[in-house]
Amino acid sequence: MPLPPEFGRLCVVLVRTRNPLNLGAAARAMSNFGFSCLRVVEPYDPAFREARSAVGASAVLAAAKAYKNVAEAVGDCTLVVGTTTARNRELQHSLRRLDAGAKIIRNQLASSRVGLLFGSEKRGLSTDDLSHCHWLLRIPTVEEHGSMNLGQAVAVTLYELVRTSAKSSPGRRKPASAEDLERLTSTLLDALFASGYVKAGTGASTEMKTRRLIRRLNLEEADARVWLGMLRQIRWKLRSE
Amino acid sequence: MPLPPEFGRLCVVLVRTRNPLNLGAAARAMSNFGFSCLRVVEPYDPAFREARSAVGASAVLAAAKAYKNVAEAVGDCTLVVGTTTARNRELQHSLRRLDAGAKIIRNQLASSRVGLLFGSEKRGLSTDDLSHCHWLLRIPTVEEHGSMNLGQAVAVTLYELVRTSAKSSPGRRKPASAEDLERLTSTLLDALFASGYVKAGTGASTEMKTRRLIRRLNLEEADARVWLGMLRQIRWKLRSE
Repeated sequence: MPLPPEFGRLCVVLVRTRNPLNLGAAARAMSNFGFSCLRVVEPYDPAFREARSAVGASAVLAAAKAYKNVAEAVGDCTLVVGTTTARNRELQHSLRRLDAGAKIIRNQLASSRVGLLFGSEKRGLSTDDLSHCHWLLRIPTVEEHGSMNLGQAVAVTLYELVRTSAKSSPGRRKPASAEDLERLTSTLLDALFASGYVKAGTGASTEMKTRRLIRRLNLEEADARVWLGMLRQIRWKLRSE
Repeated sequence: MPLPPEFGRLCVVLVRTRNPLNLGAAARAMSNFGFSCLRVVEPYDPAFREARSAVGASAVLAAAKAYKNVAEAVGDCTLVVGTTTARNRELQHSLRRLDAGAKIIRNQLASSRVGLLFGSEKRGLSTDDLSHCHWLLRIPTVEEHGSMNLGQAVAVTLYELVRTSAKSSPGRRKPASAEDLERLTSTLLDALFASGYVKAGTGASTEMKTRRLIRRLNLEEADARVWLGMLRQIRWKLRSE
């Protein structure tokens, strides 16, 4: 999948992250979904160094830049969005649900940089951090269990951003023809007669029931052939006694 | 937010998870998005115990049940879906993109249980695990950085499930349970051996192929019983010579 060039304009900004595992997890989710610009604000220093030097640390983490404050970290962004799982906490800001907010962010990325802020594990974003944001993005968690793991919050948010930009999934394989299905039906009927499951004289209604049963399988062509091969062998064996 | 009752029908099944942090992270994402049924297959025992007894271990984790194998863990599910980030690995299975697949899962949850399988951190789901699946769900990651952190993969998948409210389910009748399908598989295999279609010694791979073949039929419960009756009669006749 060629990465949309606008993904390079998204800056994931981690504010006062404490746990090196979370830094690594955020960077990994960025790689997974095709984002590369990671910025950290006031990182807990040993954690930042540890995460960067960890075995298997990603290119994203290695290229991450540290900033003294949020203002500097988002200086070149034209839209700054804070993330939260809270419902009503910050009434000063308009709150957009992740799916709706992601659309706006994608539109903005077409022409300019967007900063996406994630707060610390314990306290989230401070009132001061939030004052740099144009609006807030809310991940729709359950009220009683609102607090998300940082790496998971990053993953879910980035997933929503790529969700609709990727192409649709491939279609189903070639379906079996009516001819294939009819052949299958008659072979099955033969086997049912030979096994004694169907008694002679129950004729037409059994045949129709069996035909409908086979149609309800919605077989693909390849599978229909496998079933036909199996049933032919079974029929042959049943008759060969 | 009142939780939709159908969320209780989703079973998150973690197969051979090694890292207790990942068990905890998966359970946390489940709480965040309102899911409660966690099942673990062949957990690495010390990790499972450690995760369960960790300070702040969630109610979800405390209620998690351990199973010896995938078949037992999904026995009461009518739809079993494996997760992957691979694009073309398992051509035996149809692959649905997360957004499209989630719709199908939501519809199914309206009436019955769905098992959602996540493989181990290193190896993902094995070919044998996959043979229990009706189809696979693909998280749309970038090709070169496909491999996701387990906790993040669970979070993203569950987010997609809650993302839009469930639509009304179509008028499909009750689907067959995994237990019914397993019974059907073994009866068919017996008949194939007895007929000479399958030679002794071709064992495990034939079994898996047959299992997948049966899953692809997407049988309803009533039809599954008809097929089982037919195959039992055929098997009895084949053996009675």
